[in-house]
Amino acid sequence: MPTDFALTRRQFDLPEGVIYLDGNSLGPLPKAVAERVGQTITEEWGKLLIGGWNKAGWEAMPMAVGNRVARLIGAEPDSVVMGDTLSIKIFQLLASALEMRPDRRVILSDTGNFPSDLYMAQGLSAMLGQGYSLRTVAPEEVMEAIDDSVAVTMITEVDYRTGRKHDMRAITARAHEKGALTIWDLAHSAGALPVDLAGSGADFAAGCTYKYLNSGPGGPAFAYVAPRHQSRVRPALCGWLGHDAPFDFDPDYRPAPGVARLRVGTPPVLQLAALEASLDIWETVDMGDLRARALELTDAFIAGVEAACPDLKLATPRDHAMRGSQVSFRHPEGYAIMQALIARGVVGDFRAPDILRFGFTPLFIGPEDVEKAVSVLAEVMATRAWDRAEYRVRARVT
Amino acid sequence: MPTDFALTRRQFDLPEGVIYLDGNSLGPLPKAVAERVGQTITEEWGKLLIGGWNKAGWEAMPMAVGNRVARLIGAEPDSVVMGDTLSIKIFQLLASALEMRPDRRVILSDTGNFPSDLYMAQGLSAMLGQGYSLRTVAPEEVMEAIDDSVAVTMITEVDYRTGRKHDMRAITARAHEKGALTIWDLAHSAGALPVDLAGSGADFAAGCTYKYLNSGPGGPAFAYVAPRHQSRVRPALCGWLGHDAPFDFDPDYRPAPGVARLRVGTPPVLQLAALEASLDIWETVDMGDLRARALELTDAFIAGVEAACPDLKLATPRDHAMRGSQVSFRHPEGYAIMQALIARGVVGDFRAPDILRFGFTPLFIGPEDVEKAVSVLAEVMATRAWDRAEYRVRARVT
Repeated sequence: MPTDFALTRRQFDLPEGVIYLDGNSLGPLPKAVAERVGQTITEEWGKLLIGGWNKAGWEAMPMAVGNRVARLIGAEPDSVVMGDTLSIKIFQLLASALEMRPDRRVILSDTGNFPSDLYMAQGLSAMLGQGYSLRTVAPEEVMEAIDDSVAVTMITEVDYRTGRKHDMRAITARAHEKGALTIWDLAHSAGALPVDLAGSGADFAAGCTYKYLNSGPGGPAFAYVAPRHQSRVRPALCGWLGHDAPFDFDPDYRPAPGVARLRVGTPPVLQLAALEASLDIWETVDMGDLRARALELTDAFIAGVEAACPDLKLATPRDHAMRGSQVSFRHPEGYAIMQALIARGVVGDFRAPDILRFGFTPLFIGPEDVEKAVSVLAEVMATRAWDRAEYRVRARVT
Repeated sequence: MPTDFALTRRQFDLPEGVIYLDGNSLGPLPKAVAERVGQTITEEWGKLLIGGWNKAGWEAMPMAVGNRVARLIGAEPDSVVMGDTLSIKIFQLLASALEMRPDRRVILSDTGNFPSDLYMAQGLSAMLGQGYSLRTVAPEEVMEAIDDSVAVTMITEVDYRTGRKHDMRAITARAHEKGALTIWDLAHSAGALPVDLAGSGADFAAGCTYKYLNSGPGGPAFAYVAPRHQSRVRPALCGWLGHDAPFDFDPDYRPAPGVARLRVGTPPVLQLAALEASLDIWETVDMGDLRARALELTDAFIAGVEAACPDLKLATPRDHAMRGSQVSFRHPEGYAIMQALIARGVVGDFRAPDILRFGFTPLFIGPEDVEKAVSVLAEVMATRAWDRAEYRVRARVT
């Protein structure tokens, strides 16, 4: 049965009069979240108290929820664990990968990667010393740059600014050919498009859940380790809940079997409960349907904007194979233009220096939203409605 | 005005018929939490969407909430930041401390420290190589063990099993005399007793909020850096929200001024909202009053149990100066005894191999609870009510 996107849309609370094209930054509120989190608070925490760890299954949540996320990213059962933040998970995977390639010193990434990933690699390299370094190349040069010096590639599949999508299968194959490992950041992939970690032969991956997976502000991250590596990974951040027997209170660390060893401290139960409610919506979604719909929406938006707004330059690839689920345009006054749009109920966001970013998330965005967004944007551009001092005041976070 | 502990007690939802002496593991539910978190979900996330980061102050929460926690632990303004888990914060502080003492290789801790702290130190040492190591000594030998080889002491002020309390001021002074830095784990101190980080001259500290601070399962941790060190710390986990200008998306890491540089990824807004509601209760609490009440409660419990249960051996120091806010007794059948107590509504917990642990948290535990708990324990011991097979079945988490 084809995915019913009218049904999925009805499962979100969307403010009246807003076309929300920023689900790629923070997904909107699923209707079921408030009740689910409320129940976790009053029925579980309130009544079970410490007993909630067993009786309400809190202790098992990182792996149980991980298995639900696994389906959406083509991961094998019991190969995904939830917790912490994406940056923390990247650090753990990087440290593990470097330990598995002790004769190599290079972390390869691209200049389109999200800065936090680059910072984590810089921090790790600085701490390790011994010649470790982060090398970044332009996104289109990644394939060529993978050589025998590379220990691990650390690539975000979909560029957070341009929406450009890497070829996971090809890069992974190239890395393996050269003896390197791969870490895939799925921040703009999980819930945005079909991901096939197992089929691509990926070694490691991580992602966040507060974007396309709609888990809310500060929702937990996930980490993936290919089954073939799980018994070899020794995470640098060796927390007690990643221990083989946490409640033995052994003075020496001994990793848990499997990906659970990437657990660190106490899992954020309230945020996990919100994610669980959000994941219920995904149970009815076929990723192939989602992808077809996202391409239809992004195609329509590109065509509409290009026809109506000649001053906006497309930053996103036209080639479907190279496109995520967002569309970006460049304009020197991008910041002010976005503020004018937001003031008119079309919410995208701005990324320095000149990117207007629009996320297309089929769970709650449809063709009529695209049409409306194009017409508002066309009006803003045609009338130079953005050219007002108030739209140039930069807020700290956009 | 003296603290009104009847008033604080009324601000918690406590199940009928339960005497909850496990607030040192997971604090109970403050009545205000459900509404506060519900509002964050429906009014902030639901209506402001991405705008919540600015308009609802989510972005500022790690520092704003940190300043509220600061008052409870004697920290200077703007020296505490919230986020991640205690283990993660210990790792960041350890890595920073080692970098500040480049000619030293030893992390000194004690065998009573919580295993996760020891594991983090083991993981860090293994990753750094170069002769770094964790040295553990018995709690009473810490002072003597601080010598010129020690880069940093990593001590949990109150022992999670015995409730034995270290002398923060004396150990810090000794460490400084020997040129070492200090990291204090306040897991069983924050909200349990007066802590004077500034007055003690402590260098670094970290703690969790889901115990005595009642923030709920998976509540965020806090980290403290003394003002004199804040501009020198380069955290190993360099996340984008610890960057000087996160929204510049600079490809190179440059730490934020102050303790905010210990931020890593997106803060857990729902868990922080729960903590905020819980901290409101603390606004009416004087830490001196809290301490006096806790000593009164623990004294009474010790006296009552020792009089009625000769088979239970006190594991907690009698000396007030060496006691936290919990009382522990040893018994070879401790696990079964605790299960029998829990079945009768007296909820403490068990820590291997033989510790029965009882937390006394004056915000919601009073003298009448102590009396009742003593009488139930006395009955269980006198009748050997614990001696049943069902009480020996070990749950995964206790």
